[in-house]
Amino acid sequence: MDMRAAFHQQLELIGDELTEMSRLSGQAMRRAIRALSEGDGGLAEQVIAGDAEIDNLRDGLEIRCFDTLALQAPLAGDLRSVTAGLRMVFDLERMGDLAVHIATDARLRHPVPALPADLSLVICQMGELCGELADVAGEMIRTRDPELGTSLELDDDRVDTLHRGLFRTLTRPGAYSAEVVIDATLLARYCERFGDHAVSLGQRVVFLVTGRYPARRFAEVI
Amino acid sequence: MDMRAAFHQQLELIGDELTEMSRLSGQAMRRAIRALSEGDGGLAEQVIAGDAEIDNLRDGLEIRCFDTLALQAPLAGDLRSVTAGLRMVFDLERMGDLAVHIATDARLRHPVPALPADLSLVICQMGELCGELADVAGEMIRTRDPELGTSLELDDDRVDTLHRGLFRTLTRPGAYSAEVVIDATLLARYCERFGDHAVSLGQRVVFLVTGRYPARRFAEVI
Repeated sequence: MDMRAAFHQQLELIGDELTEMSRLSGQAMRRAIRALSEGDGGLAEQVIAGDAEIDNLRDGLEIRCFDTLALQAPLAGDLRSVTAGLRMVFDLERMGDLAVHIATDARLRHPVPALPADLSLVICQMGELCGELADVAGEMIRTRDPELGTSLELDDDRVDTLHRGLFRTLTRPGAYSAEVVIDATLLARYCERFGDHAVSLGQRVVFLVTGRYPARRFAEVI
Repeated sequence: MDMRAAFHQQLELIGDELTEMSRLSGQAMRRAIRALSEGDGGLAEQVIAGDAEIDNLRDGLEIRCFDTLALQAPLAGDLRSVTAGLRMVFDLERMGDLAVHIATDARLRHPVPALPADLSLVICQMGELCGELADVAGEMIRTRDPELGTSLELDDDRVDTLHRGLFRTLTRPGAYSAEVVIDATLLARYCERFGDHAVSLGQRVVFLVTGRYPARRFAEVI
């Protein structure tokens, strides 16, 4: 196999592993949310312990990215693929961490659900959408189909709408204790950040395929 | 100049630019906190606009890191320096973003300070410590002195203590409106994350110099 073919084989492996990290981070988010709403301490533990697998994939991917660069001085487009790959690794690692934050909150409250039922429902909906966002982002990495960005954007809008609605609910005078307001604020923030990172993954795929960052709103994901 | 000398010159430039990013992110945090506590909309704007400079440094640094790798297939230790450099770029970029979040909150409330005076004071103290954390992290990058990690850890402990105290204050029954609780929770979270990233910078310096991650608590920074 010549160097060029070896290089492209490495790029494919990088894509496969990024897709796997997306799957794992989406799964972690869904489980964390279920642990939270059902007060399931065992499931929370599972998410926290499972983060090691995501971190191992990260370590392997980083080494693979650098090995790939060392394989041959890459051309501009190839270099871009590896740079984007490294940035995606960071996004995915962070998504796993955010799921762990939610699981840690669930474990802390166990066996009592962390939130009153009405707020828990909203956080669950946000978390479910986050799981979907991770799946779509993984699918974009796998297929390199920029069109999937639309679906990503719609789901992320839904997360934002739920988030705004939650703040309106929380600020009804005297509705909840400060403890509940703090918890719900942080949990929603974790979901929102998770969604931002998933959108950022999609954005990088679009950049790789088209050479341009997509809509302006994507540029606002910070 | 031979390849090896050129490589090391590049590594030095990477270090200089990372130090500069630390300085700018610390400055951004201090200004954002001042904008928040004084209700200074102009200063908030300055922080938000100034983030472009941090992002430009990031773009330049990423390219420099990859160019440096392309310069010669690096040895293990050199590879580690460049990997660590890239990760530090992400930490520093995120620190700038967190300062922007605080400045955005300040702008939103302008000309009224965002928080009651007692809470504002605690957030200010957290922000001041964050500015210091960025400076110490920058100094660690510049000097490669792992001993500075102790000072970083102490300051970060102070941030955590303030954070816990703030939560106790916020949860005094009926003390604050839900809006204020939400705002204070998020602002404190931004400061705490900023501190985490600064600690992470120090951790990477220690790793570069000693080949090992420092104390266990450093490993918990996620």
